Amino acid sequence: MFVRRNPQLNRNDELIHLLSIEGLPASIVHHILDTAGTFLSVNDREVKKVPLLRGKSVFNLFFENSTRTRTTFEIAAKRLSADVINLDIARSSTAKGESLLDTIANLSAMHADMFVVRHSESGAPYLIARHCAPHVHVVNAGDGGHSHPTQGLLDMYTIRHYKRDFHELTVAIVGDIVHSRVARSDIHALTTLGVPEIRAVGPKTLVPGDLKEMGVRVCHDMAEGIRGADVIIMLRLQNERMGGAMLPSAGEFFKTFGLTAEKLALARPDAIVMHPGPINRGVEIDSSVADGKQSVILPQVTFGIAVRMAVMSIIAGNSA
Amino acid sequence: MFVRRNPQLNRNDELIHLLSIEGLPASIVHHILDTAGTFLSVNDREVKKVPLLRGKSVFNLFFENSTRTRTTFEIAAKRLSADVINLDIARSSTAKGESLLDTIANLSAMHADMFVVRHSESGAPYLIARHCAPHVHVVNAGDGGHSHPTQGLLDMYTIRHYKRDFHELTVAIVGDIVHSRVARSDIHALTTLGVPEIRAVGPKTLVPGDLKEMGVRVCHDMAEGIRGADVIIMLRLQNERMGGAMLPSAGEFFKTFGLTAEKLALARPDAIVMHPGPINRGVEIDSSVADGKQSVILPQVTFGIAVRMAVMSIIAGNSA
Amino acid sequence: MFVRRNPQLNRNDELIHLLSIEGLPASIVHHILDTAGTFLSVNDREVKKVPLLRGKSVFNLFFENSTRTRTTFEIAAKRLSADVINLDIARSSTAKGESLLDTIANLSAMHADMFVVRHSESGAPYLIARHCAPHVHVVNAGDGGHSHPTQGLLDMYTIRHYKRDFHELTVAIVGDIVHSRVARSDIHALTTLGVPEIRAVGPKTLVPGDLKEMGVRVCHDMAEGIRGADVIIMLRLQNERMGGAMLPSAGEFFKTFGLTAEKLALARPDAIVMHPGPINRGVEIDSSVADGKQSVILPQVTFGIAVRMAVMSIIAGNSA
Repeated sequence: MFVRRNPQLNRNDELIHLLSIEGLPASIVHHILDTAGTFLSVNDREVKKVPLLRGKSVFNLFFENSTRTRTTFEIAAKRLSADVINLDIARSSTAKGESLLDTIANLSAMHADMFVVRHSESGAPYLIARHCAPHVHVVNAGDGGHSHPTQGLLDMYTIRHYKRDFHELTVAIVGDIVHSRVARSDIHALTTLGVPEIRAVGPKTLVPGDLKEMGVRVCHDMAEGIRGADVIIMLRLQNERMGGAMLPSAGEFFKTFGLTAEKLALARPDAIVMHPGPINRGVEIDSSVADGKQSVILPQVTFGIAVRMAVMSIIAGNSA
Repeated sequence: MFVRRNPQLNRNDELIHLLSIEGLPASIVHHILDTAGTFLSVNDREVKKVPLLRGKSVFNLFFENSTRTRTTFEIAAKRLSADVINLDIARSSTAKGESLLDTIANLSAMHADMFVVRHSESGAPYLIARHCAPHVHVVNAGDGGHSHPTQGLLDMYTIRHYKRDFHELTVAIVGDIVHSRVARSDIHALTTLGVPEIRAVGPKTLVPGDLKEMGVRVCHDMAEGIRGADVIIMLRLQNERMGGAMLPSAGEFFKTFGLTAEKLALARPDAIVMHPGPINRGVEIDSSVADGKQSVILPQVTFGIAVRMAVMSIIAGNSA
Repeated sequence: MFVRRNPQLNRNDELIHLLSIEGLPASIVHHILDTAGTFLSVNDREVKKVPLLRGKSVFNLFFENSTRTRTTFEIAAKRLSADVINLDIARSSTAKGESLLDTIANLSAMHADMFVVRHSESGAPYLIARHCAPHVHVVNAGDGGHSHPTQGLLDMYTIRHYKRDFHELTVAIVGDIVHSRVARSDIHALTTLGVPEIRAVGPKTLVPGDLKEMGVRVCHDMAEGIRGADVIIMLRLQNERMGGAMLPSAGEFFKTFGLTAEKLALARPDAIVMHPGPINRGVEIDSSVADGKQSVILPQVTFGIAVRMAVMSIIAGNSA
């Protein structure tokens, strides 16, 4: 029988690329979170640099612009003492008609050690991982609507930090789930880590029906969706992704699914509120909640640096 | 009685942000200049780096584009061994509608140690300093027409270098004073350091009348303005800031207020000629003067790196 | 008798700038290639950095955009432990009307140690080398149609690596020679190193007639051009440089001068195929050749990093 290997793992089942949380064993997810924990003390120290990637060259290949995500990877790589090369891909050889794989082959020949890839096409990081030289590692920094695994991992770090155990949690993901690679990565991660109740909350146009098959409870009613939840993950309403008439106005959305103090009171008293950022105040979340006691939105950002340092240092230490 | 604290100083009156020269005691100004002096020998050595900011992350936040100023801060930070992150703010989250303060909160959560801020709105660096986390330091790299304190400080370094004592000097600032944050910072600095005669020289449309209240002598006649001066600071004629009919043509301006060898002969024989750059040859300054013996325009640039290193290392060493 | 000195060499005939291969003695070319060889082992080691340029500031001045070339210099400089400053010249002071030489004087005053210059005007790097401060070194990263010396040197490294001795070689350069600074640099280098037969192969509109005076054999017939060749250097068809009706269509060009396996069979069985990249598959080269056994296109990229490290470290070690 032919078993297709997970392209993220080597023959010893060690992580060599991070392409998606789908298919990662829970042990590897926990190993990443544990490693991130060791870097967080690093982030609090006076000198934050560690020499784990000294002499390594990390290339940020952002085919789709995202200053915020690129910055978090740049900081993480520099704190590991790597050399970081930011490639303005829109203006580079690909604009001259060079194919993606030729660009990758050329950069590999420059002895790149790691590619951090953001691409509007789902699967582009897989294509790169499949064709790059054996010494090169690939991190998916978001591909189309498919996956955003480091965001998923930092969300798991945040939940574990505040809730310790995944096995009795109710987690509600609220908003534009159909267009969200974050939601997709979170659902895979929560499932892998044994969360018993995952809810996808939003209007019918924004919550895909096939989520039920993944064991997710679909709620088109906000009160039902967040009642008793331990964790609420609000998603960004990405107006730029919407097509035409699918969506109510921002004001209507806020009224029904925007998280206010009043709605938050339906969740457990110690529920935490998360958001991948940047937040739209008054659209998916009220300012009083975003800045309130239960919000862990800014800690998420801090944990995100540590999680990216963990991913980079782990894959750089394993060979194909 | 309520006394509002100077937001640049901590409770021990130590510098924690550099927002404006206004309100800085002379002792702090001299401390910055003395510290810059120690870095200048560094700049002459073979290896110019010092490890004072090793492990620190400096973010260049240029909401208004200025490659030259950004470069001087980038060089200064790298010579202090900091990690430097250049944020292309125009393309980042603020473009997605995120507020300035949310952007700052997010970058602070990434454990930024210092923000170098250029903004077209006067006061933006103050707003950031007021709201950022206690471990973060802010340097104003120019805000609207308000202030450009590191330029003011490097001008003071230059004057002290060539003239030693401020207490008997006549300093003439010539040109477009009304639009110049440099002029404003220089006037505050010269006043703080005890310069007895400061002259603001230019046409009525470009020299604000309220300068007299700051103890500045307003001269609308060029000969009167530079006669007997020890220091002449020529300002850049910023055509892009001018509105309509306020201004004579560049040719007319040069005839009346442009610094030529002939006009320079009215100043003291050992007068120095300064300019913040980039110069407009044949508009505010003749090439023979810009490239002449009395010009200290290029030394200003060199001193500017040292002054920025001094500011960064001093504020990084003090805690809120 | 007045002998104009080679501006690339100091009084001891040591390399202080790299402006062109024209006029470089063979001994210096071989010294660069030998030094590059020592860095290649560096590129294979786990930690690739060497501290030869620690504390030095390298400025990438790309007046003409080229992400690929800039990246190779950035990597090379970082592997030598230099601080690298990328200047987006199109948006900087030159856009405010500052002259090239004023920009250079200002950057020199910031204690730049090296300028890597790409410019659309032939001779711009010479102008900069002539006017910059004595402590500053200049590397030409391509100037107009004139010269691209580091590409020429990495091509020589590649040939020497695979063929050892230059003195019995036949080298064919194929394609758009008239617009190619690479071809020009290669011809000078091959001549300097004693290659007995250099052929320029292409249609009459793309191969300049004066090449014969340089000792180059001009071939307008592809079969004649590559028959018996040891080395075939295919050039990129730069559509963006073409003016109007000079050129056949891409399809016609491929039929006549595109390198296919069939045409390659006319060369020596151990001939190597080179290309400066990025390649146009199906225009100047067939994919089966580009990806075939005789292709050394990707090794060229790897050698290019080492050659740039060699050039930078050699010139930084010599003083004017």
